[in-house]
Amino acid sequence: MRYVFAMAGRDRSATLRAGNTGHRLEAIAKGGGWMRIAVLGTGTVGRTIGTKLVELGHEVTMGSRTADNEHGREWVSAAGGGAAQGTFEDAASGAELVFNCTGGAVALEALRAAGAANLAGKVVVDVSNPLDFSQGTPPTLTVCNTDSVGERIQREFPDARVVKTLNTVNTAVMTNPAGVPGHHNLFISGNDDEAKTTVKGILGAFGWPQHTIIDLGDITGARGQEMYLPLWLRLMGRLGRPDFNIAVVHAGEN
Amino acid sequence: MRYVFAMAGRDRSATLRAGNTGHRLEAIAKGGGWMRIAVLGTGTVGRTIGTKLVELGHEVTMGSRTADNEHGREWVSAAGGGAAQGTFEDAASGAELVFNCTGGAVALEALRAAGAANLAGKVVVDVSNPLDFSQGTPPTLTVCNTDSVGERIQREFPDARVVKTLNTVNTAVMTNPAGVPGHHNLFISGNDDEAKTTVKGILGAFGWPQHTIIDLGDITGARGQEMYLPLWLRLMGRLGRPDFNIAVVHAGEN
Repeated sequence: MRYVFAMAGRDRSATLRAGNTGHRLEAIAKGGGWMRIAVLGTGTVGRTIGTKLVELGHEVTMGSRTADNEHGREWVSAAGGGAAQGTFEDAASGAELVFNCTGGAVALEALRAAGAANLAGKVVVDVSNPLDFSQGTPPTLTVCNTDSVGERIQREFPDARVVKTLNTVNTAVMTNPAGVPGHHNLFISGNDDEAKTTVKGILGAFGWPQHTIIDLGDITGARGQEMYLPLWLRLMGRLGRPDFNIAVVHAGEN
Repeated sequence: MRYVFAMAGRDRSATLRAGNTGHRLEAIAKGGGWMRIAVLGTGTVGRTIGTKLVELGHEVTMGSRTADNEHGREWVSAAGGGAAQGTFEDAASGAELVFNCTGGAVALEALRAAGAANLAGKVVVDVSNPLDFSQGTPPTLTVCNTDSVGERIQREFPDARVVKTLNTVNTAVMTNPAGVPGHHNLFISGNDDEAKTTVKGILGAFGWPQHTIIDLGDITGARGQEMYLPLWLRLMGRLGRPDFNIAVVHAGEN
């Protein structure tokens, strides 16, 4: 069930039926083609990524707990053609690729609502951070050290191809990396190399040059990506701005 | 009680007696002067920092569990004039400033052996990371998220002026930041601004330009500094080298 669905000019359904998923994913990885993408979560992260994906020509359904979410409705109206909203399940069932943009503390719950069958075989991009503000600031992490949200998602949905990325930068940087001048890096981790290649293609379309994306290896790399958050938060406080990032530098480059 | 103590050319005892500690610390902060410094821990971190401090003209006593430690003896012999070894207590009791270069998992124990009275009023530079290799690799942290080694030290020794720094870089970088080319940053945190200024002076003598040292605020910043380690370890694995660092980049610089 889809709400406020706005179809773009060309006949996407026909392309979908005719297309070969493998080739299409490959095309996406090279910066071409388009996909049906679910963006789970209607917060700033979901809206930022959803808007950019629509701009890039993808067909995006934003998922939330309810079929008609106020933020979702506003986003669909603003994002225009290619944007729709629905439940987590609506969004995931019709998608070829899923972005988890819910908070890390509720990500598993949202993905359960999306349904394991609707995630099986699909690339699931986990952008979340398990921040817990319930005890005030600074927030703590609901999971860390011996586990991570990325790993938990992969364990609970073994047929999903989980890729962790984008959680180390603010929404101001995620889809506008050039807003931070000079060299800086993004991290990616996941067990499935093809899935990581697909996601690197999308990140490239977001503006991240491929050489700036550091592959940390399997999904246990998510631990390092998520545990960087306390330093990120402290830096944001000291710099007084969220539009920053880190560059990894070593001899033999720069 | 000091072992294998080698006095440098000038009469330091006389200078010590005549000197004004406040002025001397100020001189050090500006890159001049010298101090009696305890380096607790005879591992690579302790030996690297101890050697650099001796090179800079400081009088360094390396502390360990025993008065005559094998690594300590080798270090004293190699470092030459200005180098001595002793127990944690020997080292701390004679020092004006203390570097904790023991592992984060045993730091409190080492500092208890050094003695609270021997730390009171002194700058205690905590370089440690609470890495636990007992369950294999990757190591986990013995404390994180809601607490840190830096905070634990400050809580247990409220009269010490704890400054956390240098734990985010390998020994290859600590005293040779220019080995990593271009712009990159070091973090510092602690409750006592004067103590941080003193430590920034020492870091400057190590080769860290003052503008590269980012003050994260009070000692709770140590949480972010220590929780960065899982990402650091993963990066080391992917880069295949430990002589790297991160640069914080944002609009308005570079």
